[in-house]
Amino acid sequence: MSKTNPGNFFEDFSIGQVIEHATPRTVTEGDRALYGALYPTRFAVPSSAEFAASVGLTASGKGHPVEELIAFHIAFGKTVPDISLNAVANLGYAECRFHQPVVPGDTLRTKSEVIGLKQNSNGKSGVVYVRSTATNQRGEVALDWCRWVMVHKRDVDAAAPEVVVPELAPVVAPENLVIPDGLDFASYDFGAAGETFRFDDYAVGEKIDHVDGVTLTDPEHMLATRLWQNTAKVHFNTEARPDGNRLIYGGHVISMARALSFNGLANAQLIAAINGGSHVAPAFAGDTIYAWSEVLDKAVISESIGALRLRLVATKGRDESTTLRNAEGKYAAGVLLDLDVWALVPR
Amino acid sequence: MSKTNPGNFFEDFSIGQVIEHATPRTVTEGDRALYGALYPTRFAVPSSAEFAASVGLTASGKGHPVEELIAFHIAFGKTVPDISLNAVANLGYAECRFHQPVVPGDTLRTKSEVIGLKQNSNGKSGVVYVRSTATNQRGEVALDWCRWVMVHKRDVDAAAPEVVVPELAPVVAPENLVIPDGLDFASYDFGAAGETFRFDDYAVGEKIDHVDGVTLTDPEHMLATRLWQNTAKVHFNTEARPDGNRLIYGGHVISMARALSFNGLANAQLIAAINGGSHVAPAFAGDTIYAWSEVLDKAVISESIGALRLRLVATKGRDESTTLRNAEGKYAAGVLLDLDVWALVPR
Amino acid sequence: MSKTNPGNFFEDFSIGQVIEHATPRTVTEGDRALYGALYPTRFAVPSSAEFAASVGLTASGKGHPVEELIAFHIAFGKTVPDISLNAVANLGYAECRFHQPVVPGDTLRTKSEVIGLKQNSNGKSGVVYVRSTATNQRGEVALDWCRWVMVHKRDVDAAAPEVVVPELAPVVAPENLVIPDGLDFASYDFGAAGETFRFDDYAVGEKIDHVDGVTLTDPEHMLATRLWQNTAKVHFNTEARPDGNRLIYGGHVISMARALSFNGLANAQLIAAINGGSHVAPAFAGDTIYAWSEVLDKAVISESIGALRLRLVATKGRDESTTLRNAEGKYAAGVLLDLDVWALVPR
Repeated sequence: MSKTNPGNFFEDFSIGQVIEHATPRTVTEGDRALYGALYPTRFAVPSSAEFAASVGLTASGKGHPVEELIAFHIAFGKTVPDISLNAVANLGYAECRFHQPVVPGDTLRTKSEVIGLKQNSNGKSGVVYVRSTATNQRGEVALDWCRWVMVHKRDVDAAAPEVVVPELAPVVAPENLVIPDGLDFASYDFGAAGETFRFDDYAVGEKIDHVDGVTLTDPEHMLATRLWQNTAKVHFNTEARPDGNRLIYGGHVISMARALSFNGLANAQLIAAINGGSHVAPAFAGDTIYAWSEVLDKAVISESIGALRLRLVATKGRDESTTLRNAEGKYAAGVLLDLDVWALVPR
Repeated sequence: MSKTNPGNFFEDFSIGQVIEHATPRTVTEGDRALYGALYPTRFAVPSSAEFAASVGLTASGKGHPVEELIAFHIAFGKTVPDISLNAVANLGYAECRFHQPVVPGDTLRTKSEVIGLKQNSNGKSGVVYVRSTATNQRGEVALDWCRWVMVHKRDVDAAAPEVVVPELAPVVAPENLVIPDGLDFASYDFGAAGETFRFDDYAVGEKIDHVDGVTLTDPEHMLATRLWQNTAKVHFNTEARPDGNRLIYGGHVISMARALSFNGLANAQLIAAINGGSHVAPAFAGDTIYAWSEVLDKAVISESIGALRLRLVATKGRDESTTLRNAEGKYAAGVLLDLDVWALVPR
Repeated sequence: MSKTNPGNFFEDFSIGQVIEHATPRTVTEGDRALYGALYPTRFAVPSSAEFAASVGLTASGKGHPVEELIAFHIAFGKTVPDISLNAVANLGYAECRFHQPVVPGDTLRTKSEVIGLKQNSNGKSGVVYVRSTATNQRGEVALDWCRWVMVHKRDVDAAAPEVVVPELAPVVAPENLVIPDGLDFASYDFGAAGETFRFDDYAVGEKIDHVDGVTLTDPEHMLATRLWQNTAKVHFNTEARPDGNRLIYGGHVISMARALSFNGLANAQLIAAINGGSHVAPAFAGDTIYAWSEVLDKAVISESIGALRLRLVATKGRDESTTLRNAEGKYAAGVLLDLDVWALVPR
């Protein structure tokens, strides 16, 4: 019997099945430093323990939060060996909420529940919907999210399961956002944060070209992807694809776009939710990544805190026209990522 | 007089000589994070402080152990400027034992004793045998090992020393393995560790193809090699070799193979000893590294702990046939590393 | 109105203006590890907490200092978005003094005062002189320095400001060097430090060829430059320059040269001041960097501490002749960096 992990195939999943993913992972200050080396991030909360304290995030002895996307990538990476090792495609995300900030010393583990199954008409694959939850060493939820992936069948003759397609919210309702304990932007230091713009300075429909670009390299995305213990072979092995290119982990593009968005959204300090997202096209070493954002919605959270719903778009080559779709309604050439998030900003 | 280090030549060594190597080095959480970015490691003990605690490794206030190979590379790197700066070849290792786990905050220093000398018949070089010992800031042994290297003579007319060839154990006897204080696999969480296989599931003679491959790059191996303060110029300087290639530090291939072996040996949590090892062929950027293992022996250590003696082989290109040697008894094409280790697994 | 930072132009600066730079940054053990992965540094003080304690640097509960250049790069990086985003050239440094060592947990912020302005005769740009000061979370000065940059005008018709050119010391006087609290080399361990040479072993006029070379790569300098939150686009974006090359951040060459200088200057443990420096030529991936030093001056600081004034030169390709200038008095071919520092050594 082979001892290596073959991953799960479509017929291995059943509604209600709960999978406890392996390799719990302790977050450290080393992760923060590497994240800052890999992405041009400058958001003041993860950059400065003093700033984080000034907005109430280290009250009651808690540590200095790391970027939400560090927690997201680690928690997500844990699901890969069980959920998407035999995936044809990552189809979508929904209802991703960040609960309590993750700090160095926290150990994250992830479990997933199968909440939907739908075999494709070709009989060779199917769509698996899971709700995944990452918890820390005290059992508190750090984040949870849904995603759906298309997975190969091992045996095309295996019977199709009953079709269950979950109803997923197209956007997390503002009242369902989790605001970190203690967060208060009342004495927010705009000078330290880097920009003067607050909640009221952003209008629904406004687009922001983040201007800066970064050309991707293979060593950098491999360092990042390994750091999250995501071991999908296409990211590391030039012999795994006919073209000899390493496919860049979609999360690398998410983090790059988020970091680039500092220029214009420096006060979008915390990501509260990911409403959805599409990896529109693959990215490879040599591509130069730019980003633009669009304000999709706004919501008042408290006296000092507002939430901006932002479309964050990563492109290959700069698109100053910030065009999402072409005349035929398809994604415009160059669009790599179309992400929909809620971010918390000072009012 | 030149102030730069010329290294030692064969005639500079004498039997019984003790060399205290320079640049003690404090291990940090940054080392753990970088190791995880450089190698696809997922072993639960170094990945999770909670898991390490659950197997007794953080009892009495000790910290969260890092991978044994971090300690090995750091301790080994210290010996390079004194032992192998003028080496023609690294000929072998033996009797490497890991004593107490290394945790962030530990400061390692290394000393070596010359235990063997044998001039080559050509009179131009000779073999130097050293036993090296790395200790922490409390003077406790972290690891010790023997290695032998072929070193140039400065002056071919220097007299040959008396031949002393030490007797080195071909394999560390199981009763000589050092089991970390407190280690107990009685309540081992196989789900968290990632595989269900325990001591009894492995048979002597069994081979495991670890399946996954990683294509090497120059920036990554240089980051790794510098991290261990190993400054041998062939790893960093394209002008140091006629072919313009940087030679990849053999330890980089060891760590890559060990990390790849997770897939099939996820429960081989701790390396207790390195019995021997050969760097069969050099590795360069662009090579895709795969690994396979063979169970060479087994030993019961305690009620909850077993030891597997494993041959860990790294290859350039995947060798599904897991062939070590060709018909002529020579290493098969593609074999880069042949390492012999004892690993501790739950019973 | 665009929300992205356009940077300041020459006419935006005025004498006496104080700019508080954004994004305070907490230093961590992750920074130390990454620095050691990026540069071949082995200086015993930042390498070993035990060694740092043995020379008095962790007295009164202070932590383990990181390399001065980590603090320099972080503090400098903060000034880029406000001072040099529209710079034509970085013209010089002066009067850079390191005050108290920076330790993990310290949060650095930087402010700059405009101390000089001189419009160029072409009317299109001008030189801006600033004195920048980086402080920690207790308001203590970590380092301060002057630099002057040539900055574009936004509007060539803007009126020229009154010419003010500050008087800057060509070299920090030894009595103005700040010696870290508690520093005492009386029980300095030369074996651990790696070389036997002390203050009296260095003569004014002596040159040291540091011998070793490192070939640069793009991923490595980008990791470094991002780590310091220096976001100047020419370092990251192949579309930002006509030749498609990424220009390597000058500080990367400084750190590489400093690390290479260990071989011959292992006891130049601490940098106390940077008297001046010129980035003579740009560096690109593929260049192999070597370094040599010249002892320019010496000063006794205390019974156990001496200061060496060193010219640290980085070259592209090794220059064994250690020639700074050619017959015409211009920098010799291959010279990339000419740095003038004070370093503290044991007497």
